[in-house]
Amino acid sequence: MLILGLDPGLGTTGWGIVAKSGSRLSHVANGQIKTDPKAALAERLVTLDRELADVILAHRPDNGAVEEVFVNSNAQSTLKLGQARGVCLLALARAGLPVAEYATRLVKKALVGTGAADKAQVQAMLKVLLPGVRLAGPDAADALAVAIAHAHVAR
Amino acid sequence: MLILGLDPGLGTTGWGIVAKSGSRLSHVANGQIKTDPKAALAERLVTLDRELADVILAHRPDNGAVEEVFVNSNAQSTLKLGQARGVCLLALARAGLPVAEYATRLVKKALVGTGAADKAQVQAMLKVLLPGVRLAGPDAADALAVAIAHAHVAR
Repeated sequence: MLILGLDPGLGTTGWGIVAKSGSRLSHVANGQIKTDPKAALAERLVTLDRELADVILAHRPDNGAVEEVFVNSNAQSTLKLGQARGVCLLALARAGLPVAEYATRLVKKALVGTGAADKAQVQAMLKVLLPGVRLAGPDAADALAVAIAHAHVAR
Repeated sequence: MLILGLDPGLGTTGWGIVAKSGSRLSHVANGQIKTDPKAALAERLVTLDRELADVILAHRPDNGAVEEVFVNSNAQSTLKLGQARGVCLLALARAGLPVAEYATRLVKKALVGTGAADKAQVQAMLKVLLPGVRLAGPDAADALAVAIAHAHVAR
């Protein structure tokens, strides 16, 4: 079973794919989709949608998992994130993938054992769980973490 | 020139199309897209995307105009609205339409002459500007108002 994890963002969306076979996990691919901050919002969403479609077409995952958004007090940031997140959820569901959503705390707990783990701990655990993995960046790392959390829960 | 206005919402998205010929405006169609509150978020976004694509295919508008979101202090509401809004912007841009965004106050000012106009005033003015129009509901009315605002600005 191939699981595609996404960490949505308007500027950068991380993606990561893991393969689950029985209780074994392995890394397939990871990357980051960046959109041009100078482009119009609608064009940035089109770029995100197109690149997500390319990832799905290239790897044909069976399941999608998306990080639940941390909604903060900055409404404009929440709105931006929401717009990117809507496009991410749509891209997965339109491709026929079942979509699961996981809170950041739950993702950290599944990987490190505590919901309060920091980014360095999560990335260290990723390297243990997916030997030899090369992370495209912090958002790709978070996306792989979501995919692994889904693999644990779906077990 | 056909202008498609949208008033995005996760539960209900209003849409309205006006035709502009020189300085003349006329009503083409309006409606509301509803999604099932009991369905999963990703499925609701797929419904919204599919029905927007149907509207665009049926009417082939030349321009898109979207109401700017009123971001309030409820982060969860802002996030929901953002997700629906992302799908709306994507649907327009993916179909090749130039997309303009207008703040609610500017829309009201374009129609009624004051940014502080209430919904009843906006709807009364819609009936003057688009004689014989039958409004599918309040969100469809707001969508027509955005389309008319765009027609005024694009003049």
